[in-house]
Amino acid sequence: MQFNITKDFLEEVKSLIEVSDTKKLEHILEELHFADIAEIIDELNLEDAVFIVKLLDSEKTSEALMELDEAQRDRILNALSPKEIAGELEEMDTDDAADILNELSEDVAQSVINELVDEQHAEDIVDLLRYEENSAGGLMAKELVRVNENWSVTGCVSEMRAQAENVTRVHSIYVVDNNNKLKGRLSLKDLLTSKEDTPIKDVYIPKVDFVTVNTPGEEVSRIMRKYDLEAIPVVDELDRLVGRITIDDIVDFITEEAEKDYQLASGISQDVEANDSIWELTKARLPWLVLGLLGGIGAAAIMGGFEEIFEKHAVLFFFTPLIAAMAGNVGVQSSAIIVQGIANDDLKGSIGNRLIKEILLAMLNGVILAILLFAYTFATKGEIFTSIAISTSLFVVIIVAGLVGTFVPLALHKRGIDPALATGPFITTSNDIFGILIYFMIAKAIIGI
Amino acid sequence: MQFNITKDFLEEVKSLIEVSDTKKLEHILEELHFADIAEIIDELNLEDAVFIVKLLDSEKTSEALMELDEAQRDRILNALSPKEIAGELEEMDTDDAADILNELSEDVAQSVINELVDEQHAEDIVDLLRYEENSAGGLMAKELVRVNENWSVTGCVSEMRAQAENVTRVHSIYVVDNNNKLKGRLSLKDLLTSKEDTPIKDVYIPKVDFVTVNTPGEEVSRIMRKYDLEAIPVVDELDRLVGRITIDDIVDFITEEAEKDYQLASGISQDVEANDSIWELTKARLPWLVLGLLGGIGAAAIMGGFEEIFEKHAVLFFFTPLIAAMAGNVGVQSSAIIVQGIANDDLKGSIGNRLIKEILLAMLNGVILAILLFAYTFATKGEIFTSIAISTSLFVVIIVAGLVGTFVPLALHKRGIDPALATGPFITTSNDIFGILIYFMIAKAIIGI
Repeated sequence: MQFNITKDFLEEVKSLIEVSDTKKLEHILEELHFADIAEIIDELNLEDAVFIVKLLDSEKTSEALMELDEAQRDRILNALSPKEIAGELEEMDTDDAADILNELSEDVAQSVINELVDEQHAEDIVDLLRYEENSAGGLMAKELVRVNENWSVTGCVSEMRAQAENVTRVHSIYVVDNNNKLKGRLSLKDLLTSKEDTPIKDVYIPKVDFVTVNTPGEEVSRIMRKYDLEAIPVVDELDRLVGRITIDDIVDFITEEAEKDYQLASGISQDVEANDSIWELTKARLPWLVLGLLGGIGAAAIMGGFEEIFEKHAVLFFFTPLIAAMAGNVGVQSSAIIVQGIANDDLKGSIGNRLIKEILLAMLNGVILAILLFAYTFATKGEIFTSIAISTSLFVVIIVAGLVGTFVPLALHKRGIDPALATGPFITTSNDIFGILIYFMIAKAIIGI
Repeated sequence: MQFNITKDFLEEVKSLIEVSDTKKLEHILEELHFADIAEIIDELNLEDAVFIVKLLDSEKTSEALMELDEAQRDRILNALSPKEIAGELEEMDTDDAADILNELSEDVAQSVINELVDEQHAEDIVDLLRYEENSAGGLMAKELVRVNENWSVTGCVSEMRAQAENVTRVHSIYVVDNNNKLKGRLSLKDLLTSKEDTPIKDVYIPKVDFVTVNTPGEEVSRIMRKYDLEAIPVVDELDRLVGRITIDDIVDFITEEAEKDYQLASGISQDVEANDSIWELTKARLPWLVLGLLGGIGAAAIMGGFEEIFEKHAVLFFFTPLIAAMAGNVGVQSSAIIVQGIANDDLKGSIGNRLIKEILLAMLNGVILAILLFAYTFATKGEIFTSIAISTSLFVVIIVAGLVGTFVPLALHKRGIDPALATGPFITTSNDIFGILIYFMIAKAIIGI
C-alpha cells in the first residue's frame, strides 16, 4: 500500500520539472501522501524542490514541509515570499504554523503574519508564539472540539460537526462552562447513545486529565504515556481550556529526547544528523574531543609522576590502556542504567542503597575480570608481584568506576542538571584519570618501589 | 489532576492490608487510575501486591498488571491460580492477553487458556500466539470495528455501537467485503453527515494504509510515524482483515528500541533495568567487559613489542591512554551518527561518499587537536621529534578511528546485522588496539629507532 519512491520515478519528476510540464507533474503527484511528497522534495535540489512546493496545493505541501528536517525546510522557506509562506501556514494546524514562525527571522515572521488572511487562525498562531517551545503551551495546538455544558445533545452534535471541519482528528470532545473553564470530556459513544434533548451536563465525564500551559514537555510526555492518553487538554492559569496536545506530537518529542540522550552518551553535544555539514558536525563533536584530550594529557602527567617505576617494571605501563578502558567501560555502563532509570522514573530506594548495590555488582564483575587478568599476566610474564599489582588494581578501579558512574548522574539529577550529560565522554575521561592514578598508587604500594 | 502517591498514602494502604480492611481499601483505591494502582503495586512487597490484585476488580487490575515491568508482573502471576490469571485475561485486550501468555511457562499458559470463559476472546488470543512477537501479527489486537461494504449507514451505526463496546478506542471503522477482505475505511465524520439509507459502498474511503501479519515491527513503526497514523489495520496473506495496531503500542515499541540502542552503545547487552538483580545486571555487563579486557591485553602485547623504544623515549608511553581514548571517542561519535541515520532511514548517498565526508571531518577535528597536543608536549617536554611523533599519530589515529566508526555500522547494516552492535565497547576496544598500533608505528618511523 505504501508508495516507494523509485529512482525511475524521481528521474521522471526531475525531467518533468526541467521541461516545466506542470500538468503531468500535478497528475503523477496528486495521488501521493504528503509524507511521500516530502521524501521526493528531500531528494531534489533546492530549485526543483521550490518548484514543487509552489506548484502543488498548499493543503498538501504544508504538511509535506512539516515532515522535512529543519535545515532543508529553512532553505525552501527562504526561497518563498512572505505571501507564499503565509499560504502554507493557512493550511497548517496552529502548532505547526507557530513552529515555522519560530524558525524564521523576526522580520520575515512579521511579514508572514501580516499576510495571513484567516484572522482567527492568525490570532491563534500568534497566541502560541508566546509560550516556551518545550512547554505544554509550546507543544499544544488550538484546534479542538469544545462544547458547552449547558447545551443539549442535539445542539452539541451540530456544533461539533462545524468545529470538526477544522480538526484533523477528533480525539475527545471537551466540555467547558460559560467561562470556558474545562469541566470534563464527552465520549462519542455517549453522544451517540444519549437521547437528543439530554443536557450535556448529564452525560459528560467530569474526570479528565489536563496539563497547564507551563507544564514542561517531559512531564506532558510522562503523563500521556503513563495514562495511555491520545490527547490531553491544556488549560491556562485560570483553568480555561486553551488547547490540546496529541500523541503524535509526543511521539516526535520522545524520539527527539531519546536521540539527544543517545548522542550525549556518544559524545555529540548538539542535535546533528549524518547529513549535516562538516562544520555543524565539528561543532557538535570537537568539544568532547577536547575534553578527552585534556583527560589524556592529565593521564600522561600522572604517569610522568611515576617515571621512576619505569626501569624495573616497564610492563606496568603496558597495561595502562587496559585499566583506563575498563574504568571507562564500567563507568559508562553504570551511568547508562542510572540515566535510563531516571528517564523512566523508576528508580526506587535511596542513593545509599544504589551505591551499595553497585559496589556488590562491581565486586562480582571485578573479581571475575581480575582473576582472568591475573591468569594471563602471570602465565605470560611470570612475575607474581606485578601480576598481583595489575589485577588488584583492576579490581579496585572497577569498583571506583562503578561508584563514580552511579553517583555522578544521581547527583546531577538532584541538582536539576540533565544526567545524560554524565554519560559518554565525560565519565570515560574522568574514569580514565582516576583509574590510572589508582593503578599506579596500588602498584607502587604492592611492588614497593 | 494527576494523582501523586505519597508516602502517607502508601503507609495507609499497607496498614489496611495488614488488618485486612478490604472495605476501606476498596474505597480509597476505587477512584484511582489503573496506572496509579500499578505504581502502588510496584511499591508493595509481593504478598501485599497479590492481596491488592486479588481484591480489586479485574477490570482495573488487568490494566494495572500491563503497566508493571515484566519481572514484577511474573512474580505476581506466579502467586495466582490459573483461574485467577484467566479472570485478568478476560478483561484484557487480546494483544495484551497474548503477551501475558507468552510470558508464562507452557504448562501454566495451557491451564490458563482452559479456564477462559469467553470462547471468542479465547479463540482470538490463541490465534495471536501464533505470530512472531516482533511482527505486525505479534503487535496487533483483534479488537476493531468492522463494517460490511454492503450495509447501509443505519445498519452500520447500530452494528458499530455493539462492536464498540469491546473496543477501548475507535480510531477508524474498517470496511470489508463479504469475504472479510479489507476494502477501505470510514470516518466517523462521514458517517455522521451521510443520509441513513446511503450504502457504505458509496461513502467509504478506499485508500487505506495497511500492513500484513508478517511485516516487521520496525517497519510498522516507520510507516505509522511517517504517515502519522494512530492505528493501522493488519491483513493476512489473503488480504483478510485480522487485526489492528494502535499508536500506543508503537510508542512502547519505539521507547524499547531506543532503550536497547542506548544500552548497546553503553555496553549493556540485554534489556535490563536499574532495579534488576545483580546477577541479571552482571550477565548484561560482563561480556562487554571481557571484550574490553581482551582488547586491553592486545594493546599491552603491542606495546610489549615496542619495548626497545622504552629506554630513550619513555614519554611516548605516557600518551598511550590519550591516543587510545581519542580513538575510542572519535569511533563512538562517528558510529553513533551513522547508527541514528540508519534508524531514521535518512542516510543519503553511497558508502564511498560517507567515508570521504568522514575523512574530511576527521581531518578538520584531527588538525585542531593535533596542534593543541603538539603545543602542550613541545612546551612541557621540549623534544621536537617526540612532540611531532605524538601529534602526527593523533591526527592519523583520529582519521582511522572515524573511518572504522563509519564503515563498520554501514557494513553490518548491509549484512542485515543490527548496526547498534557496532557502537560502544566494540568500537572503543577495536579502536584502542588500532590506535596504539598506529601510534607506535608512526612514532618509530619519525623518531627513527
